[in-house]
Amino acid sequence: MSSPRSRWGWGTEAGALPLGPVRTRAQAFFGDLPERAPPAAPRVPPPLVPLPGAWADFATQADGARLARALGKGWCDRVRAYQGDFSTAPDVVATPRTEAEVERVLEVAERERLAVTPFGGGSSVVGGVEPRRGPGHRGTVSLDLSALQGLLELDDVSQLARLGAGTFGPALEAALGARGFTLRHFPQSFEFSTLGGWIATRAGGHFATGATHVDELVHAARMVTPRGRWATHRVPASGAGPEPLRLLVGSEGTLGVITEAWMRVRRRPGFRASASVRFEDFARAVEAARAVVQSGLQPANARLLDGAEAMLNGVSLDGRAVLVLGFESADAPVGPLLDRALALATAAGGECPEGPLVREGGEGASAADAGERWRAAFLKGPYLQDALLRLDVLADTFETACTWRAFPELYRAVKGELEEALAPWGGGLVTCRFTHLYPDGPAPYFTFLTRVRPGAELEQWATLKATASEVLLRQGGTITHHHGVGRVHRPWYERESPPPFTAALRAVKRELDPAGVLNPGVLLP
Amino acid sequence: MSSPRSRWGWGTEAGALPLGPVRTRAQAFFGDLPERAPPAAPRVPPPLVPLPGAWADFATQADGARLARALGKGWCDRVRAYQGDFSTAPDVVATPRTEAEVERVLEVAERERLAVTPFGGGSSVVGGVEPRRGPGHRGTVSLDLSALQGLLELDDVSQLARLGAGTFGPALEAALGARGFTLRHFPQSFEFSTLGGWIATRAGGHFATGATHVDELVHAARMVTPRGRWATHRVPASGAGPEPLRLLVGSEGTLGVITEAWMRVRRRPGFRASASVRFEDFARAVEAARAVVQSGLQPANARLLDGAEAMLNGVSLDGRAVLVLGFESADAPVGPLLDRALALATAAGGECPEGPLVREGGEGASAADAGERWRAAFLKGPYLQDALLRLDVLADTFETACTWRAFPELYRAVKGELEEALAPWGGGLVTCRFTHLYPDGPAPYFTFLTRVRPGAELEQWATLKATASEVLLRQGGTITHHHGVGRVHRPWYERESPPPFTAALRAVKRELDPAGVLNPGVLLP
Repeated sequence: MSSPRSRWGWGTEAGALPLGPVRTRAQAFFGDLPERAPPAAPRVPPPLVPLPGAWADFATQADGARLARALGKGWCDRVRAYQGDFSTAPDVVATPRTEAEVERVLEVAERERLAVTPFGGGSSVVGGVEPRRGPGHRGTVSLDLSALQGLLELDDVSQLARLGAGTFGPALEAALGARGFTLRHFPQSFEFSTLGGWIATRAGGHFATGATHVDELVHAARMVTPRGRWATHRVPASGAGPEPLRLLVGSEGTLGVITEAWMRVRRRPGFRASASVRFEDFARAVEAARAVVQSGLQPANARLLDGAEAMLNGVSLDGRAVLVLGFESADAPVGPLLDRALALATAAGGECPEGPLVREGGEGASAADAGERWRAAFLKGPYLQDALLRLDVLADTFETACTWRAFPELYRAVKGELEEALAPWGGGLVTCRFTHLYPDGPAPYFTFLTRVRPGAELEQWATLKATASEVLLRQGGTITHHHGVGRVHRPWYERESPPPFTAALRAVKRELDPAGVLNPGVLLP
Repeated sequence: MSSPRSRWGWGTEAGALPLGPVRTRAQAFFGDLPERAPPAAPRVPPPLVPLPGAWADFATQADGARLARALGKGWCDRVRAYQGDFSTAPDVVATPRTEAEVERVLEVAERERLAVTPFGGGSSVVGGVEPRRGPGHRGTVSLDLSALQGLLELDDVSQLARLGAGTFGPALEAALGARGFTLRHFPQSFEFSTLGGWIATRAGGHFATGATHVDELVHAARMVTPRGRWATHRVPASGAGPEPLRLLVGSEGTLGVITEAWMRVRRRPGFRASASVRFEDFARAVEAARAVVQSGLQPANARLLDGAEAMLNGVSLDGRAVLVLGFESADAPVGPLLDRALALATAAGGECPEGPLVREGGEGASAADAGERWRAAFLKGPYLQDALLRLDVLADTFETACTWRAFPELYRAVKGELEEALAPWGGGLVTCRFTHLYPDGPAPYFTFLTRVRPGAELEQWATLKATASEVLLRQGGTITHHHGVGRVHRPWYERESPPPFTAALRAVKRELDPAGVLNPGVLLP
């Protein structure tokens, strides 16, 4: 990352998209779109507390460091940053270099009554990394894990890699790649998020079926809690009581600080096969997706785009739905698997005019294939959101998972109610794709776009978000399939959680973090 | 189950194996084996407390009912039952017919200070269903779930079935089979264990790879706790906080009583292919098993038997190791998958003299194939243990999971140390097979046999069990891959668990079961 990070938007300054082409495409939907005034000068409040002496070696109160850890990358975060509002900047940024220093941060924070927010890449879209004081706190600390990074150990027999929690996606893949392995976990935030963040938030990744969440890729993890180190057993599977790893995964920095993990890695796939299947009727396309995943086939890639989503992504301009299927293997050709999936998809009414694309070329060929091209475009998505913001267009996404039985009505209700909610602001666009498929249901991912009324952006977003969240819950979806809970999803998370589980989780919190220093307000009140 | 249940041994009286052939085989190892005197008359103590009036409609204090719920089916349980020792009989057996009645059991038990042990099929081999009083308890209740049974609802689009927790394996498969579905979860206890028991203990099942544990087959579950009903969200996947379902699964009746679950079901497989591969060298066979699972192939069946295990099972009499591989699908032929697995196995030095057995005959053919024959023999295993007990031969098993890297030394140490521990009793046999395979390691399952010294059986078993458990932990294994923790594994479970997790689990217990009525001594002190 040689280019400086964007102060208000996604990624790096150099990554920002040129505005012209985005404007041309967006104006086709929204009419004339003048460019917003440049970002306001940042306003960072002075620290509320002095730097604790015990952290002198690895902490700072410099404005630049504090500003860069004030906000996540949700749409509202970007608006606030654009407006120069960094009022949530932490009072201290600590970057411990060892697990012992992480412990020292927690000890001092507990004694000094400081709230601690673990910080990986800062890409949360749900308010998970924004420092906030809890009751009785005198100040806030952003605990940056970036110094605990790198490939620490490799067991190439068991295909396991021990990696620092602060390792960013590209560095992680580079280190594994040099040893002939890959994690194959590519969330959209891949370039600007860390292993520890993925684990803390149950990130969704590359595989559309099977090991969809990072949960399935973690073999073991270590977490520093205010009440000691939590190192889960290093076994491939166990039946000994409720799984300790599964309480750590998804804890979003509220129970401890994840410092490192043993991850399941694999050989890079040399065999690939992919195809795009088009459908006149979205319902038939859904049926095809269901047939493929219920057949027992496990495509690595299985994205279903509804007509509007396919148009928005330039994949299909005629309003037809598109099912993209891809298989991969490091071991053997996957053409026959794709053939079977295509047979199921065409039996459901799909057409595959271009035919399958099969590659068996090993490493070299992979960079050029459709999957890699898709991934490159996919990683650019958040930059597009920035460009639209500069044109006063709100583009945001939300996601869920539901049963196949529940999906048709959920889809209809989300589209209908959100379009209704968009009407007061001149209407807009609501599109849907499936990001992951399960035998019992899909993970639908919705995008919505509308013009914003400058000055009312945050309120407008809150109204739309509440509309979407209410309908997801009412129609049997989960409030999040892979974006996490943070503070933004908490009201709906609380309604979705079984009350005895909520009581149990609060009891765990009180036990491990009795002073409530860890990420107050995230997951739990 | 028309035949009466055995009072001291496995399953039904009619299921007991004729002693003659077992004796002939066992005498080849152990020399002359006279038959033990018949089981002693049962001694059941009178109840310590009267039957609570609120349970009059669904509870009993009859000796027969109490005796049948006094013990699990571990080797020591059978010895105690054989000796007539039913001193652990519950004071009351309650068989609630509704969730409300389950709640009534917990309410009254809390008020009257009675310990409650949830009881499914009673097949625990780790002391998980034996009633015991905790501190301050006046008596014990066995809460039998058998009235909450049957297929309650089927969503054939999402391939989900709602089933009562008290449903036994055969009834469950019969009900699903009538609708064209199967759960395909066949633990060795299948005939005499229940869905709720499988979920409470994280049972291991049919699939050797992929969905190995029942954990992966549960879509959602309901559990009655002393602090309210815990119904997990009905979604195929979620990223919202630590997964509530994963705290319920494996809780072994200590946090609540599981009453029903939505299970992921599937179409019955019509396409199958299997083969047996023989290896001179066990280490090469291990390498083959690893190559198969790390290739990404997901055989439904992948059992590796070491030479001694293959001889014990009559699979191979020449001391060679045997890798049994089987693929199945409801959708498409699986011959090519088996071919690829065989290529990997033969590349590691295996031979497949009989060639693959491929069946694509649909329903009818399945009953005759090798997988089905294996399963029938497999389900007979616990009866064999009974027959050997009658000959004063101790035959028991323990199981674990470890990384591929750790396995060779774990295997060597287990065999060596257990053989040494067997020496004082005239030696014996220690065999090993893999029951499940993961990309990061196998699940080794050990069997040991030795002659018992009548009168010293329990002490002898305790010594051997402690030896085995110590070496598993020391060599990086888990104390149990799928037998559960109960009371028997607790000392090692406590050492295996990260201390902050143990503290967290105790906090959850205090929160949900503040009076400590649920299964005291299981999982937690």
